[in-house]
Amino acid sequence: MHKRRSEDWALESGCYFLKNLYNLSDLSLEEILLILQEAEAFRHGATFEGAAGKIVANLFFEPSTRTHYSFQTAQLRLNCKILDFMPETSSMRKGETFYDTVKTFESFGIDLAIIRHSQNEYYNQLENLNIPFINAGDGTGNHPTQSLLDLMTIRQEFGHFDGLRVAIVGDIRHSRVAHTNIGIMQRLGMEVYTSGPEQLRDANDNYIDFDKAVRTMDVIMLLRVQHERHSERTQMYELSPQEYNRLYGMNHERLEMMKPGAIIMHPAPFNRGVELSDEVVECPQSRIFKQVQNGVFVRMAAIKRALGGF
Amino acid sequence: MHKRRSEDWALESGCYFLKNLYNLSDLSLEEILLILQEAEAFRHGATFEGAAGKIVANLFFEPSTRTHYSFQTAQLRLNCKILDFMPETSSMRKGETFYDTVKTFESFGIDLAIIRHSQNEYYNQLENLNIPFINAGDGTGNHPTQSLLDLMTIRQEFGHFDGLRVAIVGDIRHSRVAHTNIGIMQRLGMEVYTSGPEQLRDANDNYIDFDKAVRTMDVIMLLRVQHERHSERTQMYELSPQEYNRLYGMNHERLEMMKPGAIIMHPAPFNRGVELSDEVVECPQSRIFKQVQNGVFVRMAAIKRALGGF
Amino acid sequence: MHKRRSEDWALESGCYFLKNLYNLSDLSLEEILLILQEAEAFRHGATFEGAAGKIVANLFFEPSTRTHYSFQTAQLRLNCKILDFMPETSSMRKGETFYDTVKTFESFGIDLAIIRHSQNEYYNQLENLNIPFINAGDGTGNHPTQSLLDLMTIRQEFGHFDGLRVAIVGDIRHSRVAHTNIGIMQRLGMEVYTSGPEQLRDANDNYIDFDKAVRTMDVIMLLRVQHERHSERTQMYELSPQEYNRLYGMNHERLEMMKPGAIIMHPAPFNRGVELSDEVVECPQSRIFKQVQNGVFVRMAAIKRALGGF
Repeated sequence: MHKRRSEDWALESGCYFLKNLYNLSDLSLEEILLILQEAEAFRHGATFEGAAGKIVANLFFEPSTRTHYSFQTAQLRLNCKILDFMPETSSMRKGETFYDTVKTFESFGIDLAIIRHSQNEYYNQLENLNIPFINAGDGTGNHPTQSLLDLMTIRQEFGHFDGLRVAIVGDIRHSRVAHTNIGIMQRLGMEVYTSGPEQLRDANDNYIDFDKAVRTMDVIMLLRVQHERHSERTQMYELSPQEYNRLYGMNHERLEMMKPGAIIMHPAPFNRGVELSDEVVECPQSRIFKQVQNGVFVRMAAIKRALGGF
Repeated sequence: MHKRRSEDWALESGCYFLKNLYNLSDLSLEEILLILQEAEAFRHGATFEGAAGKIVANLFFEPSTRTHYSFQTAQLRLNCKILDFMPETSSMRKGETFYDTVKTFESFGIDLAIIRHSQNEYYNQLENLNIPFINAGDGTGNHPTQSLLDLMTIRQEFGHFDGLRVAIVGDIRHSRVAHTNIGIMQRLGMEVYTSGPEQLRDANDNYIDFDKAVRTMDVIMLLRVQHERHSERTQMYELSPQEYNRLYGMNHERLEMMKPGAIIMHPAPFNRGVELSDEVVECPQSRIFKQVQNGVFVRMAAIKRALGGF
Repeated sequence: MHKRRSEDWALESGCYFLKNLYNLSDLSLEEILLILQEAEAFRHGATFEGAAGKIVANLFFEPSTRTHYSFQTAQLRLNCKILDFMPETSSMRKGETFYDTVKTFESFGIDLAIIRHSQNEYYNQLENLNIPFINAGDGTGNHPTQSLLDLMTIRQEFGHFDGLRVAIVGDIRHSRVAHTNIGIMQRLGMEVYTSGPEQLRDANDNYIDFDKAVRTMDVIMLLRVQHERHSERTQMYELSPQEYNRLYGMNHERLEMMKPGAIIMHPAPFNRGVELSDEVVECPQSRIFKQVQNGVFVRMAAIKRALGGF
């Protein structure tokens, strides 16, 4: 059995039909720009009748309410029929394997599955199945729809990607948002830097001092301090919220240092008083809730694509 | 930023459009009677196309399955699209503030939010948002749709409110049902009394001996003994269920004492053998399941109003 | 008050209307074959407009995600409106009785309830209510839709029931699947045997040595080792998974012993390495995921019947 990738679906069926979205590295830049274009169309009121009545199963093996509700909203807007499965809160599974659970939903006759799982590249176990999948986050690996909504937000602001300078700040090592964004942003011609506590860096990052980043970047992308993913004890734990904010957080003083036209992003949920102070959340430079808005449109586009809409 | 009240929505838009329902004290008697009239129309089969396809988010920060399912049923009947958010059972939020969670749902593009929260007057934090809200219960404060369904049930029985005598019996102090009902019933010209254990009275109640109430009232409204809201130790804890029933509960003996034509109400869920004996639940005087029926119609009316339907 | 059975609904209304499905022993063979025929029609693309817009409440007092999602999928395909109630995960009920909870949903105005409850024959408490019910499992008693999907799968394979030989293997005593299947299969003319650990047998079973069964049966129906139902300590606990598989599980060696044309079934979820080895799950003889597929069609047929569709 060969490993099935998104292109294979198209090849097998002889037309564009049933396309997975596991990660962005499998996609060409043309494909990514096409998804963003479809998302913009949805933002401007486009509809897609091909999704109406399709049964979509949200299989969230790892809890993620925000991404889950964003996908649900996208599905409601597209008039999909929705199955929501969250094993950790629903007491199911009784020792059933991940593969058997997904195969069971396939057997129910669903048309599409949105999957989140704590295991990196879990989707390699699913090559045997015959329905399309959209990855809603795999461990510390990929989070393609989050990156797509970030790209959509950046392009709305600057009209292009090439040459833009972005600093991703915080827990780089454990963040699938950071991993996915660094890869695709570099391919799109952006200059990507990282900043934050030394213990949370990846080996291959492009480190920049945070205050220097604030003064020079077009995009300051803050990451959430996510205690639940730290398996080792890191120095970040020894920082109080106030101290984290003083060293690596956006606050009133740093707002004043920012380059004109520069923006602040955060994948949310954010910790007020840690990654950013209260006055930053809805300040003129913040695009945080804009990102949430765009998330719904990007996911509508991903669903349209998965169902063969483009 | 001024405090936004229901009238403001109408003023801002120049027409009746987007009206919050936070509490009943903000509403004129005309508005309340109009909601009841719309609820009666729904009971007789009316429909409201303006709600079809609208995305309604049920945000229940405090669990309340009964009210939640009543709202869901109302939304299903109106062909709304539904997002259900219950942070306590869904393991979400990760330290996110109440405001940020609601703002996130607004950013998803929802058309209406139904909110329950344990904090009194939580809705004062939401004046910044641009979608309508319906309060499904705030702490020990208000529960407007519960009061509306009580009023609908009473009017079905007696055809009017003026001069009716009602006794609300039980844990007055912790009950938002009691607080909301006392206010609106007095405005509607009803004589409102309270009864029950001394430690659970409010300072400004109009106390009546329970057996006297049973003999003289048109409406006996029992409240649930709700252990989960008692922050202090009260004497009620020292009463056995049998003793509570003997002192303050409806039972076979008291049924016989009731005034002809008088009715028994309870917001449910009720404790059999405590507030009422088994034989009382579906006795001829009981309107308990009638109240549940009316709840769906009242909530349909509240949703229609919030979406600008009247 | 007489005990209401499925036939009564038809009698009372003078036409086929509102038919409960509590167990299969209440149904004639003609009725059962009619349900299977309707299920096959749904498999081949039939629709039933009479269910569209009907409000169906899934009341799962005992968690059962698999059956629950199968019913949900059936409801989505039939364009029903769905209320999902799972008290154990939703923190509801606050001491409310089973009857009062179901009566509350009836009062909401639902058209049909799908109920699972851990108490055997819980449905005898509901004779007072005026909506149809489908039993999704009662304690160790009945699981009619599971048996119907098993029958559908067997008939697809062999074209008939009469004279087929089936062995049900495992925890017979605690299995409502076994109890329901033994009754209906015998009525349909099948030879039914049971096998598995001695301590888990019922008194009136028709025991067969497992290896003999593997060699001679048309259908090997494995049951899940379900630790959560054992109230007493049984010898099965003293078997390791490997040992259980060696004694009573399907594995590579036993696959080779099977009669040509014979099939393996399992109600799922299954324990890999216990009731069956990895290589058995999707082997040519396995009908496990076929059963899952058929489950949706059988439940569509049960809903159509309950709503008066045949």
